[in-house]
Amino acid sequence: MNQTRPGVDPFTTRTPRVVAARRLRRRRERTESGRFLAEGPQAVREGGPAVVELFGTPAALDRHADVVEAVRAHGARVSPITDEALAALAETVQPQGLVAVCSAIDVPLASALAKAPRLVAVLADVRDPGNAGTVLRTADAAGAGVVVFAGEAVDPYNGKCVRASAGSLFHVDVVRTDDPSAVVDAARAAGLRVLAAAAHGGTDLDDLADAGALRAPTAWLFGSEAHGLPAPLARAADARVRVPIHGRAESLNLAAAAAVCLYASARAQRVEERSR
Amino acid sequence: MNQTRPGVDPFTTRTPRVVAARRLRRRRERTESGRFLAEGPQAVREGGPAVVELFGTPAALDRHADVVEAVRAHGARVSPITDEALAALAETVQPQGLVAVCSAIDVPLASALAKAPRLVAVLADVRDPGNAGTVLRTADAAGAGVVVFAGEAVDPYNGKCVRASAGSLFHVDVVRTDDPSAVVDAARAAGLRVLAAAAHGGTDLDDLADAGALRAPTAWLFGSEAHGLPAPLARAADARVRVPIHGRAESLNLAAAAAVCLYASARAQRVEERSR
Repeated sequence: MNQTRPGVDPFTTRTPRVVAARRLRRRRERTESGRFLAEGPQAVREGGPAVVELFGTPAALDRHADVVEAVRAHGARVSPITDEALAALAETVQPQGLVAVCSAIDVPLASALAKAPRLVAVLADVRDPGNAGTVLRTADAAGAGVVVFAGEAVDPYNGKCVRASAGSLFHVDVVRTDDPSAVVDAARAAGLRVLAAAAHGGTDLDDLADAGALRAPTAWLFGSEAHGLPAPLARAADARVRVPIHGRAESLNLAAAAAVCLYASARAQRVEERSR
Repeated sequence: MNQTRPGVDPFTTRTPRVVAARRLRRRRERTESGRFLAEGPQAVREGGPAVVELFGTPAALDRHADVVEAVRAHGARVSPITDEALAALAETVQPQGLVAVCSAIDVPLASALAKAPRLVAVLADVRDPGNAGTVLRTADAAGAGVVVFAGEAVDPYNGKCVRASAGSLFHVDVVRTDDPSAVVDAARAAGLRVLAAAAHGGTDLDDLADAGALRAPTAWLFGSEAHGLPAPLARAADARVRVPIHGRAESLNLAAAAAVCLYASARAQRVEERSR
């Protein structure tokens, strides 16, 4: 048996902090602890001050010395871990040797709206974590400052959502709220125009753009892939907007529809800014 | 033992035609036979004359009598099948009781271009079947008449791609070709402007739109999520176009970028049509 120095051995699957971290793969545990997991060097880098502890295989910690230095600078603990323990923490086959425990970063709706964002995306009852994470990434790219997970929407800290967001979870103000209709009221009170993306909405997106109506600060409501927006929520919006279908497809999927809507707003707002 | 009438019993997992259909879950078998599987009532309905044989549980065949009638009208065989045999054929948990064997519907590039499409999407080396199918659906919605699977792209008849396309596989001219650069030449010869979607492209999509350059008939080239477009292919295009990133996201995912690009073209071409 090798004599090894305590404190230098990588953590194993039985090390209490690894056991505790592994529990964060469950929603309930995330909710109770206010912590979640982020995998891979990109997510860890973007996590910045949200990172509480970085677990990595010795090889990965060497390879990503810049990431290690960055999270240490924010006061995070850095812990070597065995390959087996890493595999137990990670949900992907290729987390590149790094998994971080992060603190929840969501903010209250009022704080997010107080910053006067010009573009907001609201995910109402969007349950698929891959879809939600992709829309979060697209919203960030389109310049949305706030993404709201409302109603029965997936936990934004779900591992698949975190991965699909490709770091954008840490770039925007993430808000969680049970009541989507309260979001409509608050957004409107904050001076945002509220538009519901609806496959059979009465207003054509291009017509709105032509009319200059997309230049105003806007909150977009997106519903679930399966059911769309709840009817009362769609009715509460200022308009129900359809992306025009030029071919024979019945509809767009959620991520594609959100991309077209958010980028239509981004383009209109950019034109507005230039003309000032 | 029950006495049952031959010819009325639902097919089982051991019925030779079910065994043969099940093999179509493998790419090699699809390529050799020129057939593929489509699951669920929507895909079967859209499949129309491409459907060779419809397998369904007795309950599903009753429930979807309209679909049964439609495929019969096209001359397809309709075969009842046990729940177990259906589960063996289907890749999804919920195919709603129907799986169809369809004939490959791809057409040669020259035939597709001869119809003078105004919008074409080229998937170069796009390997993820879900992404490819989603882009196919979005391309259809945006009014693209042709979608080309080029180079090392996924088999368009891959089950996941067929499902993600939500019927659009049957709406557009699907083309398969090994050589993406030949597509660029052929598209240009057919009068199409060739634009490469590239995260770090030198031309901003909004600038192109502002300049009216998206009104021309256009072929968009999209590369794989992991590697983007091969450099020689990107260079061969008339321009390398980036979707502007307004926030802190590093990039968009493939499906979102394709949605923004294709819809920017659709909108510009619609304006062009209106002004004629």
